[in-house]
Amino acid sequence: MAEYRPATGDEAEFLAELIGRGLLLAGGAPGVYGRGDAFEDVRERVDALVSRAAEPDGAERLRFPPLLPRRYLESTGYLRSFPHLAGTIFAFEGSERDAAEQEQRAGRHEDWSEFQTMTDLVLVPAACYPVYPAIASRGALAPGGLTVDAGGSYVFRREPSADPARLQMFHQREMVRIGEPEAVAGWRGAWCERAVDVLRRLGVAAELEVASDPFFGRPGRMLAANQRAQELKFELTIQIASPEPTAVASFNYHQDHFAQTFGIELHDGAPVHTACLGFGLERIALGLFRAHGLDTALWPAEVKEELWDV
Amino acid sequence: MAEYRPATGDEAEFLAELIGRGLLLAGGAPGVYGRGDAFEDVRERVDALVSRAAEPDGAERLRFPPLLPRRYLESTGYLRSFPHLAGTIFAFEGSERDAAEQEQRAGRHEDWSEFQTMTDLVLVPAACYPVYPAIASRGALAPGGLTVDAGGSYVFRREPSADPARLQMFHQREMVRIGEPEAVAGWRGAWCERAVDVLRRLGVAAELEVASDPFFGRPGRMLAANQRAQELKFELTIQIASPEPTAVASFNYHQDHFAQTFGIELHDGAPVHTACLGFGLERIALGLFRAHGLDTALWPAEVKEELWDV
Repeated sequence: MAEYRPATGDEAEFLAELIGRGLLLAGGAPGVYGRGDAFEDVRERVDALVSRAAEPDGAERLRFPPLLPRRYLESTGYLRSFPHLAGTIFAFEGSERDAAEQEQRAGRHEDWSEFQTMTDLVLVPAACYPVYPAIASRGALAPGGLTVDAGGSYVFRREPSADPARLQMFHQREMVRIGEPEAVAGWRGAWCERAVDVLRRLGVAAELEVASDPFFGRPGRMLAANQRAQELKFELTIQIASPEPTAVASFNYHQDHFAQTFGIELHDGAPVHTACLGFGLERIALGLFRAHGLDTALWPAEVKEELWDV
Repeated sequence: MAEYRPATGDEAEFLAELIGRGLLLAGGAPGVYGRGDAFEDVRERVDALVSRAAEPDGAERLRFPPLLPRRYLESTGYLRSFPHLAGTIFAFEGSERDAAEQEQRAGRHEDWSEFQTMTDLVLVPAACYPVYPAIASRGALAPGGLTVDAGGSYVFRREPSADPARLQMFHQREMVRIGEPEAVAGWRGAWCERAVDVLRRLGVAAELEVASDPFFGRPGRMLAANQRAQELKFELTIQIASPEPTAVASFNYHQDHFAQTFGIELHDGAPVHTACLGFGLERIALGLFRAHGLDTALWPAEVKEELWDV
């Protein structure tokens, strides 16, 4: 298995506590867990808090399944930046004889990969990816552009790890802004402040930082340095069970990258930029359980009020 | 592409209307669409109606991501019955040089499958699959067993089609019953009646039928005949845009198959059977738009009341 990250002592202990309490359920693979009712309740309430914070945006609500046509991934440059994180979908296209051989090998837990063929689909790597081609397909945008609320979308990252805060598929609570450069940059700036406020009112000390993506390989170091120098990515970090703080939200300015890739245009021909933000809902829930304890009934009154009394 | 099914005239026209109205959004591949606010609102309200119908069950609410360890799929016999429907996840494990070559080929939309390696994960083929190993991992069950509410889970089916009612990933609103054979059989029977009632109160004529799964190949015909003869599967069908009625819910009795496969036990050693039911939420929403029109404001008062006044 690629780059499996073992847990630190604290991470392993936290995961064991979460499973012992039924907040998470063993899923049979690192970073793949079921979620119990109490965990899911917190995750959904955090989702609702983000929706409340998003109300001033008047966003258009759109939802997408966690599948993306492979050719979109091929066109965006994702495979240059993050080849190690992408998940592609393969399927069977063989004969009855092939199916029988595949099944026999699989039943013995041997290698049956030769019977699987690459499909035209991949897993969604970031919740904003399906938004751009869908918006482009509707034609040129009115002046001012638009904001899309893409909800709590499942995204895939090939990062097997025993840290409960590093899941291979998780809910990214996503908003996307598409429009004139100044409007898009201003929107992202305003959200950085809103997001700090959302987290702090939940009793967790969130820090906003200039950040960079986990670009692949040696050339990735320069990409990361450029990204930081241009302040294209901010992250909100909180302390969970890892020695270092964990990113729980990111605010990303793409300049004209996605608009150019997918051909998004404004009616008046003005340049189009995009930005997106994503809250990692499972990570925020984990941060709350870590900060306030595993029994939500015993959480501070002001946190309970913030989450449930709205 | 495997077994692509073109649309009938009515199906193609219905899809075009749905996209024209913004109820669905073009997703770049057959059976992969975004969902607009009005569609999603109906889908969520149908989900809530099923939750209301499920209240007497007192089910334990659990949620799972759409990933399953590959070895579970290998152990269940899914690849014998449905090799053509499964989706496996591949990822990159190569060097920087491989990554560069992969990216160049992908950028030209050429074949880059040789750089992808089978992972230990597959896509969830049915929403009940992650439930059994998770329940087994908690140890023997108390007498009576339990009922699990697995929510509206995304499941994958490799069935590319231009029929808007045939999605490659969709929400299966899933309930699972695990316990003594009589209790499990009785639960499934009661739900068949409840489900007909849920659909009929939404103004769609739903028919309950003995059914069989789309088993693969020639040996599959015998599996299907056995399944029908033993009445292991019932389906609820409604008319959408296809010439034949479309299944929108299924009620499945697995006898001891999953309990044996995953080692689920009762404290007193009694035999354990399982059953599950799944409502196809997108299909039910599509059926409602087909029956009552594309503008929910104009739907019959009693249907609107049923969906929104609760």
